[in-house]
Amino acid sequence: MQIIADNLHIVRPEIARAVEQMDPEPIQNLVNQCVRYGAQAIDINPGPLSKEAEARMTFIVETVQAVTGLPLMIDTTNPTAMAAGLRVCRNRAIINGFSMEPAKIEGILPLAKQYDVDIVGYLLHHDSRVPIDADEMMGLAVALFEVYTKNGLPPDRLIVDPVITPLSWQDGVRHNQSVLALIRSLDDLLGAPVRTIAGVSNLASGPMVVGRKVALEQTFIPMLAAAGLDMALMNVMHRPSVETIELCGSLLEDDVFAWPLSSLP
Amino acid sequence: MQIIADNLHIVRPEIARAVEQMDPEPIQNLVNQCVRYGAQAIDINPGPLSKEAEARMTFIVETVQAVTGLPLMIDTTNPTAMAAGLRVCRNRAIINGFSMEPAKIEGILPLAKQYDVDIVGYLLHHDSRVPIDADEMMGLAVALFEVYTKNGLPPDRLIVDPVITPLSWQDGVRHNQSVLALIRSLDDLLGAPVRTIAGVSNLASGPMVVGRKVALEQTFIPMLAAAGLDMALMNVMHRPSVETIELCGSLLEDDVFAWPLSSLP
Repeated sequence: MQIIADNLHIVRPEIARAVEQMDPEPIQNLVNQCVRYGAQAIDINPGPLSKEAEARMTFIVETVQAVTGLPLMIDTTNPTAMAAGLRVCRNRAIINGFSMEPAKIEGILPLAKQYDVDIVGYLLHHDSRVPIDADEMMGLAVALFEVYTKNGLPPDRLIVDPVITPLSWQDGVRHNQSVLALIRSLDDLLGAPVRTIAGVSNLASGPMVVGRKVALEQTFIPMLAAAGLDMALMNVMHRPSVETIELCGSLLEDDVFAWPLSSLP
Repeated sequence: MQIIADNLHIVRPEIARAVEQMDPEPIQNLVNQCVRYGAQAIDINPGPLSKEAEARMTFIVETVQAVTGLPLMIDTTNPTAMAAGLRVCRNRAIINGFSMEPAKIEGILPLAKQYDVDIVGYLLHHDSRVPIDADEMMGLAVALFEVYTKNGLPPDRLIVDPVITPLSWQDGVRHNQSVLALIRSLDDLLGAPVRTIAGVSNLASGPMVVGRKVALEQTFIPMLAAAGLDMALMNVMHRPSVETIELCGSLLEDDVFAWPLSSLP
């Protein structure tokens, strides 16, 4: 399982400030730290960028690729910002992402073809509702795959995100069981090998004692790994979960996972 | 997932002594402790009992069922001792167990029919070799099931043990991946719902730092749980693994898991 750092996020005040002031230093410091902690790709989430979208996204992507050659996930709902980021990205780029929401299908999905890059597809209904039961989720995966391939895109460029939800949600337990079933059966369902990604820290988000958060993530990650999850979007500095992913790699002979954890800070 | 205590084992010197001297107290103290820690069944492993097999097994079973009404797994390779234990057992009894080894098929398996009890079937070749690849393991499960049903026994009395091996063994990683695949596909493979059991502490046995043992068990248990393992044979006093099983229960809505862990010592 590959680890994608979700650390470069606009919710962090120092990142919000750096984006606002176009100050590269806090961004590069954070990216360098993520690389040291073993990130295998960096998710760049500057929010919707309602002001100076192109200039700001261009600045962030240039800033990040000045210090790392890792793949960059460009994570915004703003098609103008997305296009600007893809235009200047010299590292491998991944679009994050589209769903059945019409604005995403019209504004974001075509960029995957235009820039010939990977794209994350979220299993969310057109109104952004989360599917609960496995049948509903699988139906949505088939519909998303149809929309995706109708746009002339190849299966090996798609990365499906079944959207882990907080366990504390009303249907959280049932939904996350469906996530496991979806990951296990996706290739058979679509008739093509399609990669999967999940935001593992969603599971234990919300008010909860820290020890329980850690334990829940450490318990759910092996289930995801054994189901065949390809990429985890996560706080790469959260060592217990990263160590769990390493152990999963050694239990499942996951050759993709080959970075020297023991030499990390 | 149900927890079967493997604590009552002849390798413990105080238990070996108690069996030798037919002293009930150390046995009952240990069983009472297992019950307090949440055991849902007790595995009774007095070894092969080469001397006074009947008297000693009778003594142990009577001693244990004097303090608990939990199901008892009678765990010995000695058919005479097994029969003696089953004869006096008033709690629910489970035979542990048989395999493709001719002596087990002839000496142990018929006792399941005679006493109308559940029996554990180990996925081991006739010469006790462990199958490595998933195909080999599945072939063995089919063969074991055939032998089992030919003896006139019903599928719902069988509990398959795919035999977790130490990760440190040459083919340990590959073998334990096959174990997961086997558990996931067993019902489809046999065309009947058949329960599964596994000795989870086998995985990290052998020389290894304690922290890694704990982490490996905590990582493998969720994989087993998500695959559908029904019973874990384990040290019920090993809290990290028991807590992991509890978390698996809450993630997988495992209704079987319904004992109040929070009230334990």
